[in-house]
Order: sequence, then C-alpha cells, then structure tokens
Amino acid sequence: MSECLPAPIAFAGSPIDRADHVRADPAAIAALLGRKAKVLCLDGLDPVLSDDGALVWRDLPTEASRGELVFLGLEGEGEHARGCFAEVPLNLPPGGPHAGPGGWNAMAVLDVGELAIYGAARALVSWHARHRFCAQCGAATVIAKGGWQRDCVSRTEASAQDDPNHCGASHFPRVDPVTIMTVEHEGCLLLGRQPRFPEGRYSALAGFVEPGETIEEAVARETFEEAGVRVRDVRYVISQPWPFPSSLMIGCHAFADDPAIVMDETEMEDVRWFTREEVAEALEARTRGENGRAFGAPPHTAVAHALLAWWLSRK
Amino acid sequence: MSECLPAPIAFAGSPIDRADHVRADPAAIAALLGRKAKVLCLDGLDPVLSDDGALVWRDLPTEASRGELVFLGLEGEGEHARGCFAEVPLNLPPGGPHAGPGGWNAMAVLDVGELAIYGAARALVSWHARHRFCAQCGAATVIAKGGWQRDCVSRTEASAQDDPNHCGASHFPRVDPVTIMTVEHEGCLLLGRQPRFPEGRYSALAGFVEPGETIEEAVARETFEEAGVRVRDVRYVISQPWPFPSSLMIGCHAFADDPAIVMDETEMEDVRWFTREEVAEALEARTRGENGRAFGAPPHTAVAHALLAWWLSRK
Repeated sequence: MSECLPAPIAFAGSPIDRADHVRADPAAIAALLGRKAKVLCLDGLDPVLSDDGALVWRDLPTEASRGELVFLGLEGEGEHARGCFAEVPLNLPPGGPHAGPGGWNAMAVLDVGELAIYGAARALVSWHARHRFCAQCGAATVIAKGGWQRDCVSRTEASAQDDPNHCGASHFPRVDPVTIMTVEHEGCLLLGRQPRFPEGRYSALAGFVEPGETIEEAVARETFEEAGVRVRDVRYVISQPWPFPSSLMIGCHAFADDPAIVMDETEMEDVRWFTREEVAEALEARTRGENGRAFGAPPHTAVAHALLAWWLSRK
Repeated sequence: MSECLPAPIAFAGSPIDRADHVRADPAAIAALLGRKAKVLCLDGLDPVLSDDGALVWRDLPTEASRGELVFLGLEGEGEHARGCFAEVPLNLPPGGPHAGPGGWNAMAVLDVGELAIYGAARALVSWHARHRFCAQCGAATVIAKGGWQRDCVSRTEASAQDDPNHCGASHFPRVDPVTIMTVEHEGCLLLGRQPRFPEGRYSALAGFVEPGETIEEAVARETFEEAGVRVRDVRYVISQPWPFPSSLMIGCHAFADDPAIVMDETEMEDVRWFTREEVAEALEARTRGENGRAFGAPPHTAVAHALLAWWLSRK
C-alpha cells in the first residue's frame, strides 16, 4: 500500500542507526562518549534550530555536569561512527501532550531525517523526565541500557535489595498505539473536529487502542463512540511515530453502511460527511496554507493528511 | 486481508460492551455496582475455571472489603445491562511477563468470547497492580475512570495540591505494540527460536516498536537485529491483543533478497529458513499437538500461527 503514499511520512526515516547492541554494553557507550559524541540541543522539549533551519548539536558536557544521557544511535559507519545523544532535563519540561508551537515549527522547518531524529529524542527525553520514580514501588529510578530502560534503584543498590520497599522493576519507554481512520460511505468521508482544533479544521477520527482489542476492533469502537457510525472491512493503510508525547499512529480505512451520525459531545465539536470534491479542494488549499471552502485539511506532516491523500488517490 | 484468516484470533472478539461513557460517570458506575454487578474470579492473574471450562464470576464484595474495581464493560442491553468488573489484587501477583501455565490453560479451555474478556481483565489488573505509584513524582496513585486511569494523589487530595512533592499526573494502561513478521525468500520462511521456547519450537521473529519508528521500520530493524536479514515490501496482515503483560501484536509479512543469516546470539538460539512443505507439515502436526518433522509450530492461539497459516494460504 505504501506505493500510493508520500514516503517517508513525517518523523519516520531516521538516518541514524539505533545500534541496539551498543545499548546494553556500558563499555561501548563509554567508548563513544570518550571519542566524539554529540548531544542534541533542546529548549525544554523543543529543538534548538540554526539560522538555516537545522538541528543544533553540542559537545558532551563534562562528566561532572552531565545529566542523564540517552543514546539515540550512531551516525556514520565503522571507525568513524559517532554517538548521538540527548540529555534528560533536570526538571519536568513545560508543555502538555500536544505538539505546541515548537513542535509545529520543527515540522515546518526540519528536513525528513532531522525531524525523525528530533522526534525519537523528544519522545525518549519526555518519557525519562516523567518516569523518575518506580510505578511499582515509588522508589527512585535510574537510567539504564543507554536510555532505553529505567531501573528501580534496588537493582543498582545492592544494600537495598532486602528492603521490601524496593522492588527492582525495570521500566521501558512507552509507545502508545492510536488508530486513526478514514471512514467512507457512498463516496463521502467521515471527518470530525475537536474543540482544540484550529478554526475550520476537520480531521480523521482517532483514539487509543485499549488492552484487549485488535487494531480493527479499536477502529470500530472509536468510530462508534465518537460518531455513532458502525464500520466494516477495516484495512491498514499507513503508520507514523508521533512524539506528542509517544504515539504510534496506525492509519486505517473502513466502510460504513449507515451514515446516520450520533456524535459524542464530550469529545467532538462536530462530525460530518464530506464529498470527494470537498476533500480534494481542502487538500489543495492546504498546500497554499489555507482552509478549503468546506473545511480546513490537516497539515502535511499529520498522518491524517496522508490518509486523505491516499483515499483520493485510490480510485 | 482478514478474509484469509481464522476470525476472530485468540483474545479478540469480546462480547461485552466497553461502554466508554460509563467510565467517566461515577453515578453510572455506582448504579451498576448497586444493581447486579459481577466480579471476575482470578487466582493471581490466572482465571478461575469452572468444571466445564468457563470463567467463574462472583457477587460484589461488601463495600468495606472491596479493593479497587476495574469496570470491564456491560453484558446485556438497556435495563438488563449488567456491569462486569475485575478486582485488583492487594499484593503484586506472582509470575513474569509471559503467559505461564495458567495463561496457556486459559487459551486451551475458554471459548473465544470468554478468552477475550479474561485477556482484557488480566492486562488491566496486572497494570494496576504494577502502577500503584506515580512515575512522575513517586506519590501514591488511586484508581480513576472505572479503572481506565490512575491519578497521582494530589489530584484527589485538595490539601496536597500545594505540596511540590505531588504532581497530579494521570496515568493510563499500557498497550505495547510489538511487530511480528513472516519474512520470505524464494518461497522459504525465516523463523527463529529463543532459548525459552519449548523443545523444537520455531516462530516468527518479533520485537517491540520503539519511539520514533513506523511499524514497517520496526519490522526491518528487528529482522536485521535478530537475523542480519534486510527486508523490503513490508505489509500488514493481522493484529492481536496479547495480555502477557500488555502487548498489541502487529503481524506483518516482508520479503528478503539476500538469505544470509547473521544471528543475534544474545536473543536467539537459532534462526533458519524453512520450506513451504516444512511449514505446512509443522502446522498440520500442531493440530495433533505435536512438533513437525522440521520444527514445532507455534500454538493455534498465537498470532505467529495465524501468520504461518495466512502465508501458506495466499498462493
């Protein structure tokens, strides 16, 4: 299916090698830090950008002033490979779960590869800053495996191992799967708007996959919850990592037989069917930075935009 | 694609209505509890089974003896709808992240709908038992929204809101997306075995989706990490909720051009290519409860089994 889609989608296509084998090897991490590692410059969770719109990197802080470093991966090959790191801020960075102006600016300015590096760094750094304590026992946690794990302190403090208040649990960065779906009925598309959306914006319905359901079941449940519409023939179309704060967007398509809408008024401000012509015109208008006549399409970097474009392209 | 697959897959197809609108409505929850609610009987995280292999439910405990109750959903319609709940154990249940004998027995015995109810309950109850503390600040958490959320105590204790040690964060049940993939080269399939597998068992390679990557990128990375094999043309096939402890299995297929294997010896015990005939014979043998001549196929309830069957069916 990906042949119909603009590839890669925003936040995918990272040029650095995640080098999983390095993470669990403290000697390999130390060797990278001793050589020519670089640290991504962040302002809270937003990227610091150069005048020409690129990510800015800095040299390693001295060991004494160093916070927790997350190993993002290797740039270059073999002997010349350089370790790329991000530093976890000491205090909880401001900002909610959504992209915010800094996130949207990054999407507007950064090239594909740099946006992917930033997205992974943001999701990881944000997770670390919000997981300094063990959810199982309340003790402190420390960074482990190059930043791809946090361990309850009892794992690292031998003296505490007999303390029943410390449990030794390991914790892993979250990736939260979210279904997002174009739902079709007689050539029209079901889109909705949430109160927080910009003026005129409509987008594909979406919601988190819950424990105990398949992707297809989540698509059907969310569409029914938000719009009162039953769907059939759910199919997967495209996925996207969305680092606000740590979603895996799973883009799907489905058909509806009955177009009657019963909207969830707690989550949605409006849900409507739009014609193919209205969707096409809204996507065209978006390339000019404008809302279409019927509605404002989601931005190019959102998986919803890719889903709408895919839907238009397939007949 | 689902038309080629046995539907529904194990742990999908729950007959109860998740009734999202009830969760956030304490009066609706109270009304259900006052009427004819029932509580799933669990032994740790394993289901208690009746002599004829069904889930066992009990009446609500008295309010005084009641632990934290998770609202699983509604059974029946309208006036007759009955609330289904699970109780979070007071102590951390024993057992690791894998299914264990109780989990495998549930898969062997329960019918489709009951297995789905149990799976969702297990994933939720296990998450609550492991998240009694706030990962952001270390304070206690309390159950919220019918068990689909936990809140840091500062949210519920007005007097603590000015205490800088309490942060008021909300936490949500985890669903961890995992890619699992059949990789094909010249009509042969790439399968591997981990040291913890039963004797002779080989299965599809698999691994967690990480922050900052698409489903397709995760498939490619994991196949290269575990087997040294590069893939192309990744496509989605099927998904499955797998409650050990909270995975969303995302089954995919991909092609490899170069069959040379460089195995990750820390994770895998063996990785090999198997012919179509070997895969077909192993699946047939599995229906008799046996290993095939070349290898032992994964059990019917595993998404890997469905992937292998799908692969055989598609040509």
